[in-house]
Amino acid sequence: MTARTLQGFMELLPEEQIVMERMKSVIAHTYELFGFAPLDTPVLELAEVLLSKSGGETEKQIYEFKKGDTDLAMRFDLTVPLAKYIALYHNNLTFPFKRYQIGKVYRGERPQKGRFREFYQCDIDIIDRDELNIVYDAEVLAVIYTVFKKLQLPAFKIYINNRKLLSGFLENLEIADKTVDVLRLVDKIKKIPEEAFLGELNELGLPQDKNKELLNFIKIKGSNQQILAKLEDFNIKNEIYQTGLNELNTVVSQAICLGIPVDNVQIDLSITRGLDYYTGTVYETFFDEHPEFGSVCSGGRYDNLSSVFMDKKFPGVGISIGLTRLYDQLHNNGLLNIQGPTPNKVLVITQSSEYAQNALQLLSSLRSNEIAADVLLRECKFKKKMEYANKIKIPYLVIIGEDEASNGYYTLKDMKNGEQFKVSASELINKIK
Amino acid sequence: MTARTLQGFMELLPEEQIVMERMKSVIAHTYELFGFAPLDTPVLELAEVLLSKSGGETEKQIYEFKKGDTDLAMRFDLTVPLAKYIALYHNNLTFPFKRYQIGKVYRGERPQKGRFREFYQCDIDIIDRDELNIVYDAEVLAVIYTVFKKLQLPAFKIYINNRKLLSGFLENLEIADKTVDVLRLVDKIKKIPEEAFLGELNELGLPQDKNKELLNFIKIKGSNQQILAKLEDFNIKNEIYQTGLNELNTVVSQAICLGIPVDNVQIDLSITRGLDYYTGTVYETFFDEHPEFGSVCSGGRYDNLSSVFMDKKFPGVGISIGLTRLYDQLHNNGLLNIQGPTPNKVLVITQSSEYAQNALQLLSSLRSNEIAADVLLRECKFKKKMEYANKIKIPYLVIIGEDEASNGYYTLKDMKNGEQFKVSASELINKIK
Repeated sequence: MTARTLQGFMELLPEEQIVMERMKSVIAHTYELFGFAPLDTPVLELAEVLLSKSGGETEKQIYEFKKGDTDLAMRFDLTVPLAKYIALYHNNLTFPFKRYQIGKVYRGERPQKGRFREFYQCDIDIIDRDELNIVYDAEVLAVIYTVFKKLQLPAFKIYINNRKLLSGFLENLEIADKTVDVLRLVDKIKKIPEEAFLGELNELGLPQDKNKELLNFIKIKGSNQQILAKLEDFNIKNEIYQTGLNELNTVVSQAICLGIPVDNVQIDLSITRGLDYYTGTVYETFFDEHPEFGSVCSGGRYDNLSSVFMDKKFPGVGISIGLTRLYDQLHNNGLLNIQGPTPNKVLVITQSSEYAQNALQLLSSLRSNEIAADVLLRECKFKKKMEYANKIKIPYLVIIGEDEASNGYYTLKDMKNGEQFKVSASELINKIK
Repeated sequence: MTARTLQGFMELLPEEQIVMERMKSVIAHTYELFGFAPLDTPVLELAEVLLSKSGGETEKQIYEFKKGDTDLAMRFDLTVPLAKYIALYHNNLTFPFKRYQIGKVYRGERPQKGRFREFYQCDIDIIDRDELNIVYDAEVLAVIYTVFKKLQLPAFKIYINNRKLLSGFLENLEIADKTVDVLRLVDKIKKIPEEAFLGELNELGLPQDKNKELLNFIKIKGSNQQILAKLEDFNIKNEIYQTGLNELNTVVSQAICLGIPVDNVQIDLSITRGLDYYTGTVYETFFDEHPEFGSVCSGGRYDNLSSVFMDKKFPGVGISIGLTRLYDQLHNNGLLNIQGPTPNKVLVITQSSEYAQNALQLLSSLRSNEIAADVLLRECKFKKKMEYANKIKIPYLVIIGEDEASNGYYTLKDMKNGEQFKVSASELINKIK
């Protein structure tokens, strides 16, 4: 039998895994700092529940199968499970409900470099009943900003937009019936040439002059204040447009109150997010020097999370970090600045196995003092044991031999500078702490 | 569409989830304290890889399906994936290799109370090439003891045995050919009456007198020292038996060096673990007052982890905590003593939404100081906001109204004793820290 791991499934070496775990814990920690509570839903759900809302593309990618009479599917995101969760438990929850979830999701895509079939999503969502204050959309920006800073990621910008602007703009052009198609098309504009974009607009049956107007609209550039001023200047008498403009104004100004540097948030009217369910603010995040990574953190505002399951209205706003791909891209480009903790602080080695007992007693004291410590127990030459200590890059080495055992002390070696000390157990603990 | 969660899949409310997450992080933390490095392998594997070693019962329970031409299966434990991992990456690993993994596994059992189809296993294993020092078997005891203490679990005992003892004993009785069947049967002895046990022994075709001898052997009771003395007294001239006795002796005496109280480790010769791959030390853990929970942490020593995948020999020792079931049992019996952290330390509420800006500025300072904080932004009466604060049991409330905003201070309310203070932002932060 050949040992093999499925293509598109990440598997890391221990030293890499430590960094990945560190990233996960920084993200979880930051989410908690902003008041989000953890949630954990099953990886497997009824297929009909997961597919209740999704379109054709997702359905092709989903891992779906029968067990007995039941149609099962592996979750492909954390949003549909959240919609189900809210529908099931809303009577037991306190709203506004802020939850985070860090978990694996599954998409059976054609395998290709940088694409994973199993990957971590790290989601936050803020959900309220009936109405959710727009200021929470700015809170989300603050979370992204803080997480990215704490992960020591390269220079980045969060691009924001409000889908109501484009919807209102299209309504004003009297082509509102094409809104869904146009928003989906605009989402692709950065990936295709302008010519091709206009061609596809024509295919939608939009009049030539309106296409140009649309293109000029989504290409508006400038500082946030300049863009907001231009949007104001259009003076479009459309309610949806004006609501969108007000919301975007609020989000940008409150982001400043939340301490997010102006340079890290940029309005971009071509950001729409393809998905139909976004209805207001939308977010994408790009590294300044690595646009080719694509958006590494995206999301938006939706009017009604659980609409397929119930009549009650639960608006929300949320984002997701695709952690597995992010880790992979950073790793491949030497951009991982965050360090995992060394698994052990101290390694104890003995000159012969008769001192194992002394080693264990010391280990017990070290661990009682919350110092991660280990012993190497192996019948091998002392030189081999030193090689092992160097290989695992241990910060502190403790040596126990005949002299140490009979005179009741330990030899402590600081592996950074090679200094050696004769110490008692308590001196050793104090020194390391 | 009705929102539903599959039977046998745990889904918790936020306040419960916080406790569960706390348990997970205590376990991970303790594992790291003992020098184990994190590992994360895929939930999905090739079916042939997962089923390479397993028997009929597992195969019936496994979630297996086809995607395209590939036979896939969801992992049913974390041991087979580890065996695969070692086979794949052993050239890149440093041995002894100590890894922990906390992850979900899947078994499509018939649903019944207290049984889960998706559950967390929290595993540790220590693996070496060719040979693994027996003292590591004592280390494993220390890990279980420390984890259980840190989880504030009820009084417990770790029951240990060494399968070589019974194997040697049976060899000595000249019924070595029945060893596998007998060990599997002995594993059931606590669940069936003695009569039934003897009946099943007879069915295996063992002579009556040897059955009695066997029964008396596995029923030996007493302190660890007494049992070890009795095992010595048998004076059985069998190499396997004597090796088993030496190993058990070492594990018990080194456990004391590691600081494990004598009361928490008990030799029990009827513990065998049903699985074939254990070859030496075996562990089970029971709560003194709740034997009906079954073993909440089990494992053992094996000679050759990756034998189905390769010729090289990798002996190891490890245990697994079935966390989902453990949580469920503790929860149902009111035995969860560990507390989850309150998600937020501070809630900011405003007398009207015009002070949202002030609230956000304060939030930004609090979070920069690593204080988890949140704001309630809702168009509702002040009384409703106070109700919300009480409902989420927030420790500190900050109120911002007209007076606060215009005179530049905050009203801080300590919700435990109801005391109120007028404070500046920095005073507020100092007070809470």
